[in-house]
Amino acid sequence: MKRLLRFIHKFNSPKRCFCVGACNNTQMPPAGGRVFSGIQPTGVPHLGNYLGALENWVALQDQYPSVLYSIVDMHSITQPQDPNQLRGNILDMAASLLACGIDPERAIVFQQSQVSEHAELSWILGCLTSMPRLRHLPQWKIKSKLKSEGSVGLYTYPVLQAADILLYKSTHVPVGEDQVQHLELAQDLARIFNNRYGGLFPEPNALLSSTRKVKSLRDPSAKMSKSDPQTMATITITDSPDDIALKIRRAVTDFTSEVTFDPETRPGVSNLVTIHAAMATITVEEAVYRARGLDTGAYKKLVTEAVIQRLTPIREEIERLRSDRAHLEAVLLQGNHRARELAAPVLREVRQRVGFC
Amino acid sequence: MKRLLRFIHKFNSPKRCFCVGACNNTQMPPAGGRVFSGIQPTGVPHLGNYLGALENWVALQDQYPSVLYSIVDMHSITQPQDPNQLRGNILDMAASLLACGIDPERAIVFQQSQVSEHAELSWILGCLTSMPRLRHLPQWKIKSKLKSEGSVGLYTYPVLQAADILLYKSTHVPVGEDQVQHLELAQDLARIFNNRYGGLFPEPNALLSSTRKVKSLRDPSAKMSKSDPQTMATITITDSPDDIALKIRRAVTDFTSEVTFDPETRPGVSNLVTIHAAMATITVEEAVYRARGLDTGAYKKLVTEAVIQRLTPIREEIERLRSDRAHLEAVLLQGNHRARELAAPVLREVRQRVGFC
Repeated sequence: MKRLLRFIHKFNSPKRCFCVGACNNTQMPPAGGRVFSGIQPTGVPHLGNYLGALENWVALQDQYPSVLYSIVDMHSITQPQDPNQLRGNILDMAASLLACGIDPERAIVFQQSQVSEHAELSWILGCLTSMPRLRHLPQWKIKSKLKSEGSVGLYTYPVLQAADILLYKSTHVPVGEDQVQHLELAQDLARIFNNRYGGLFPEPNALLSSTRKVKSLRDPSAKMSKSDPQTMATITITDSPDDIALKIRRAVTDFTSEVTFDPETRPGVSNLVTIHAAMATITVEEAVYRARGLDTGAYKKLVTEAVIQRLTPIREEIERLRSDRAHLEAVLLQGNHRARELAAPVLREVRQRVGFC
Repeated sequence: MKRLLRFIHKFNSPKRCFCVGACNNTQMPPAGGRVFSGIQPTGVPHLGNYLGALENWVALQDQYPSVLYSIVDMHSITQPQDPNQLRGNILDMAASLLACGIDPERAIVFQQSQVSEHAELSWILGCLTSMPRLRHLPQWKIKSKLKSEGSVGLYTYPVLQAADILLYKSTHVPVGEDQVQHLELAQDLARIFNNRYGGLFPEPNALLSSTRKVKSLRDPSAKMSKSDPQTMATITITDSPDDIALKIRRAVTDFTSEVTFDPETRPGVSNLVTIHAAMATITVEEAVYRARGLDTGAYKKLVTEAVIQRLTPIREEIERLRSDRAHLEAVLLQGNHRARELAAPVLREVRQRVGFC
């Protein structure tokens, strides 16, 4: 009983909430908006990740006053993971983000699983989501077919994604085309929550990432992918200059030696032009112009050079960061702390509105 | 960068986990075991709740060295709830538990939503649960049919229940027959987790609650239920003596005036015998013996007396506690705190084994 009395003085008003901490109304995101995006810790990113998402993430740091990038390890366990590899992949992803130019002073770089509010909000939003709403979303349609059956985590992960976004009252979310339906769920859940419990969440807007699609070097009809079984298909951002040269030399093209850009009829060589233009930060037209007079074999050397030139400092920085594990851990710890500072008051407000306190 | 440096000294060992706090291996529950059970905050319990569960909970405090009773508000929002009513129901349930004899010094009485580890472990266990595993569990089969469609929360709540239990390494779980399949899921998930990540969770054992089933006073083929639309069907533990007398007087019996105990052929009068025996803490045989020479009308007065005698101190204590909201909040705050102290090291260990740190 004595132990109880210690708490009592704090709760002498009958209108006071009985959660720990005050339920202050949470501030809105800063004028100009807040960007949130997440990336699974699949290890070191490949060229497709870099050009499709990370390069854009770096640019967004300068365009928005508040930016959060999350290493979404809770999403990654919707498929079986080796724990040691996952641990390593989380740090590798942190190193990669920093090496690509994410500045942890301007962007909050953090690990999703270390901010408990993600799971908590996800549960609450799951109670506002009908079961059929998730059935046709891409993650379930595609991934559950690869195995005999998917897990509850795989089925419900778009709800966790919605929680990731709404937890920070994010206003802008860079997404690839394949994620647009998932963002629509987040928008719907913001509306459903606001209608039921009063306006709290802004409806987040999609920032469609670059339409540049980097294709597999071995099969230019498919996206470049980490899980491609053909090692020659994918350039990771830590590939050595020799590996890059070899992979591009082996890249599938066609029997026309001239370099043109026509993704429909000449996907292989057009993929190289896309990569060249992106890595040299020139237009596609400029890339084709620079290729005049070169056959595809010679052009591959030009592309190789551009890729090596762009990736070398990134690779070197990743190597340096990998040897400074304490620094990576400190960056994540600081990011987790800053993310929690934003998430905690929002979740307190959610809890209060739902009636938990 | 300076802010980062402050964190660095803590993480100078490459083998050190990068979560906040140390990942100490968590202690096992005390010898003799740990009991966990939860009850939804549906407001003041009825006689069926009291005799089917709460009376047993009180007894378990003396039989086990560690006991946790959770007001599971996260489960309650799997069906729509009015926030104000939910808030009130949480405190009413706390008052009811104390008034029925739960001693917050011996049992940890706490509010599920205030211990974030429940939602976090639920996410992880959901990634180990196949979708079809949940399809045939009672909560979904029954409740999703009442509405046009159920929510993700309703479908996945047995996973949250498993997390509730495993989070405390509970060894014993008092359950009604209708919850046995849900406990089996918790047992399966303990096995699946232990197989994949190494032994961590004991497989919890069912403590089947009393087989006494209290039936509706208006329809003795159905269970007594809070949601029964007939107000005369259910006695709540705060009913006034007049209400109790009226409800028992109106209780459905049959055209035989003698009192016998035969639930199959005489469910109405047998239900009264069950209630009488339980409330007077005598055997069914003793209750029938005391009814000798009485017709059902006169017997109802005997039953009424026994119910009033047993419930009056409980009702009065609930009324007293309702006027001492600060005390109820203090009990919950202390319980939440103690629950977190047990949950946090277990979840840290789980996170470490999964590879999150």
